[in-house]
Amino acid sequence: MAKPRLRVIPLGGLNEIGKNMMAMEYEDDIIVIDAGLMFPKEEMLGIDLVIPDINYLLEKREKVRGIIITHGHEDHIGALPYLLPQLNVPVYSTKLTRGLISVKLKERKALSGANLKVIPPGSQFILGKFKIAFFPVCHSIPDAVGLIIHTPIGTIVHSGDFKLDYTPVSGKPTDLSRLAQLGAQGILLLLSDSTYAELPGYTPSERVVGETLDHIMANAPGRVIITTFSSLVSRIQQVIDSAAKHQRRVFILGRSMTDTVRMTLELGYLNAPDGVLARLDELKGMPHDKIAFVTTGSQGEPTSALVRIANRDHRQLHIVRGDTVVLSATPVPGNEALVNRTVDNLFKQGAQVLYSKVEQVHVHGHGSQEELKLLLNLVKPKFFMPIHGEYRHLSLHAKLAQSVGIPKENIFVLEDGDILELNPQAAKISGRITAGNVYVDGLSVGDIGSVVLRDRRMLSKDGMVVVIIAINRQTGKLVGRPDIVSRGFVDTRESKDMLDESRDLVARALDHGRNRPADWGFINTKVRDTLHKFYYEQTKRRPMILPFMVKV
Amino acid sequence: MAKPRLRVIPLGGLNEIGKNMMAMEYEDDIIVIDAGLMFPKEEMLGIDLVIPDINYLLEKREKVRGIIITHGHEDHIGALPYLLPQLNVPVYSTKLTRGLISVKLKERKALSGANLKVIPPGSQFILGKFKIAFFPVCHSIPDAVGLIIHTPIGTIVHSGDFKLDYTPVSGKPTDLSRLAQLGAQGILLLLSDSTYAELPGYTPSERVVGETLDHIMANAPGRVIITTFSSLVSRIQQVIDSAAKHQRRVFILGRSMTDTVRMTLELGYLNAPDGVLARLDELKGMPHDKIAFVTTGSQGEPTSALVRIANRDHRQLHIVRGDTVVLSATPVPGNEALVNRTVDNLFKQGAQVLYSKVEQVHVHGHGSQEELKLLLNLVKPKFFMPIHGEYRHLSLHAKLAQSVGIPKENIFVLEDGDILELNPQAAKISGRITAGNVYVDGLSVGDIGSVVLRDRRMLSKDGMVVVIIAINRQTGKLVGRPDIVSRGFVDTRESKDMLDESRDLVARALDHGRNRPADWGFINTKVRDTLHKFYYEQTKRRPMILPFMVKV
Repeated sequence: MAKPRLRVIPLGGLNEIGKNMMAMEYEDDIIVIDAGLMFPKEEMLGIDLVIPDINYLLEKREKVRGIIITHGHEDHIGALPYLLPQLNVPVYSTKLTRGLISVKLKERKALSGANLKVIPPGSQFILGKFKIAFFPVCHSIPDAVGLIIHTPIGTIVHSGDFKLDYTPVSGKPTDLSRLAQLGAQGILLLLSDSTYAELPGYTPSERVVGETLDHIMANAPGRVIITTFSSLVSRIQQVIDSAAKHQRRVFILGRSMTDTVRMTLELGYLNAPDGVLARLDELKGMPHDKIAFVTTGSQGEPTSALVRIANRDHRQLHIVRGDTVVLSATPVPGNEALVNRTVDNLFKQGAQVLYSKVEQVHVHGHGSQEELKLLLNLVKPKFFMPIHGEYRHLSLHAKLAQSVGIPKENIFVLEDGDILELNPQAAKISGRITAGNVYVDGLSVGDIGSVVLRDRRMLSKDGMVVVIIAINRQTGKLVGRPDIVSRGFVDTRESKDMLDESRDLVARALDHGRNRPADWGFINTKVRDTLHKFYYEQTKRRPMILPFMVKV
Repeated sequence: MAKPRLRVIPLGGLNEIGKNMMAMEYEDDIIVIDAGLMFPKEEMLGIDLVIPDINYLLEKREKVRGIIITHGHEDHIGALPYLLPQLNVPVYSTKLTRGLISVKLKERKALSGANLKVIPPGSQFILGKFKIAFFPVCHSIPDAVGLIIHTPIGTIVHSGDFKLDYTPVSGKPTDLSRLAQLGAQGILLLLSDSTYAELPGYTPSERVVGETLDHIMANAPGRVIITTFSSLVSRIQQVIDSAAKHQRRVFILGRSMTDTVRMTLELGYLNAPDGVLARLDELKGMPHDKIAFVTTGSQGEPTSALVRIANRDHRQLHIVRGDTVVLSATPVPGNEALVNRTVDNLFKQGAQVLYSKVEQVHVHGHGSQEELKLLLNLVKPKFFMPIHGEYRHLSLHAKLAQSVGIPKENIFVLEDGDILELNPQAAKISGRITAGNVYVDGLSVGDIGSVVLRDRRMLSKDGMVVVIIAINRQTGKLVGRPDIVSRGFVDTRESKDMLDESRDLVARALDHGRNRPADWGFINTKVRDTLHKFYYEQTKRRPMILPFMVKV
């Protein structure tokens, strides 16, 4: 490969679902696609959120021409507030996506100075050697796009997050004929969404949910309370349309839902017939079968409107018999327990609760296996790289690509940090850069490392014991009995005798009978060993033991 | 209700899935049905397992006639090792269930003194005023039964865990005609399994899995490695049968799998044609398409054979290209992340991995909605109480009962501890007793309460800071600078300056300038307030702060 090479480097989104980010590099130009966050996994104790490692971009900062965002979900835009202050390059997106980015940057006080560019439908833009055009795709948020990237060595198609929906509620269907034309002209590389590569068949159209909602609005004996993602604007549209059809007025609950509805109405992504949306002060006295609510809380978020309602802790809305609650969303992995608890509590309050396990009140936003194969068939890429997914999703997507005729040696399953290097004839994984998780915890970004997390894990399991040892400055001998305080280890009242005994044990262990200066290393090791052994024998637990020496 | 009443009291299994246990009380007799454990939920930090609160039974210990176990799963037998030492009454079960109970008791050194009785099929036994008979049900373990309980005020049917499978692999199908006869004679109360009340339709027969396994054994180019629950004996039987058909020999990996296979072969619950089961020392040189493995690890348990294999950490078995791994089980809620990681790692090793999302390699062991309705239809109980499920499952099961014609006022959705009181004409929830979770953590049972868990939670989130303050015994004044040590809070090198500054802050806060004896209350509060405020401003984190005063 003598010619200049194109490098495609996933920086996030391939090892875990979320924090999507990718770099493309050709000679002196780098473009970045998406900059998302991931919510912490169970073992990331106390972490607020996770963003990609961008050191590679910072090292080559003079080459970075811009960041292209495919749509406005957190896992595609959420890292921008942390990234732009370090790497202030223009951000390119559609109009609604730009609106959502602004909100996010404002929340984190990172809006001023940001250069947010809107690309109108149909137009192209140039970043260094890359010429980029958006094509509309269907996803669970309006204004989502895929990318057509013309490079000096060939054209790349990036699917964004997509599904095929020939009858979408809002927005345009995925532009298949454009993709077919491009496919006929020859595509060097396809990067395609693998999130639902495990699911056989086709993802159902949003219309299916519309029909269920219609049925609910028509037949519910009382109020209908619907919760969904605030970014799922098409779902909110369906609720409004269905409510209007059945003479129900719609009340919006929850801050983020209210904000989104206001913004999308203003930008024209949401349409409400006159007199359908209502203010909460109009609620009083209205017949229950004329009322619908749209609220936040589909993930069981503890401070959301729905969870407050489920806990009888909401100011405006208490469940009464006859209410129907619809969870028009599925739990994001990790949130199942919170969502289940919310559903249980709503049932306990006497509501009828409909959720995706029992009714078709949600369809997801990613293509299933047949859709993925269709895209591969239309685009007919020379090379294929599955993106957006954990290793099993990528592997299954690779198998789908093989099944539609792409040679195995032209398919590349990468992990974050792997470098795919291409020329017009060949491609290979040529090396890797450092990529990984950067933890955001409170104000700080990246200071939490494996040591802090290991300590939190240890503390969370069996708690800790602090031992204060007073040593005579002159003689090096123990003064008095050591003090012991524990937290998260045992019930201190029930285990008073054992804790007392452990004080004596420490005292005996340190009574080395010689007059020598206190040796901290000796004391530290001795106290830990003695207590670890004793506590494990007594409790089969291993608390963290922290000895302190005080010279008196 | 003047007549003596029958009381039905769920002690576990209705607030959360797992730790199933129920008491029935009539005059001076109490029988207990099942004694299960639950694995800890995410928020139960450091807890090993959870069992029901049996204080009610201990208070009335002289009335308790025996414990009846419906089948040998952990969520039905797992509390016995903790319960029998406190309440040594006879335990009644089928033969295999007794075998599994013995293993469990032996592990926990609680076997000696236990009185384990096997009830042969078809026979009845009497416990005080209760006359009990088992009827076979299909479930994901052999020898599972439901109960027919004749009481002085009428007959009760308890479904156990069940599904309908007209073509089970091992064991008998659920005895529908017996239930129909009983239904015709009149049943006072039906207690029925709600675990899958969310699922429409019928649960598929085990045969479906057999067909998939056959297909895999016939077509896999290399070795087939199958993992499932070690208690799912019918699945192991299917693997053996299918392997034999396709000239593969079967190797068993993992201690609990080896133990179960040995015991079930001995007791006659598992049958292997001569020469199918093989010893590991026969492995060498055998062609790969003649090999099948059965292993533990379907839940991603870190020490299981499958996880070691996935991590290239197993002594006997390394994945090579051409291997097919089958996860013939679904993740128990809470285990999804561990299982997903295992699947990812197996793909990375080059295996073809088949799991329930992509192939029908598992069917579950509980009846879906149509089966639940069929049971209700056959038994035609006067009163109905859904059991085994969280509140939403019970609510949905109650709705199913209404839909088949049981009057709403005869259906009782209870929570653990609620007392259902019945006479032949009427039933009502008449009160409640204390029921709840007892935590087992290491050696101790029940000493972990909300305070210890709250501390562990707090420590896990933002770690902790210990502050050592030396005070002059005479003057009450601070001596030197306070010492500060943190764990799980910040990176101590990166945040050295901030931690240093906090030492000075504490010193200034305590420099009250007056000569008065050190007041511990004052110092404690002052140090906490000062540091909480400072650390929160600096980091937006709230570590646990533990001040210590040492008089010097």
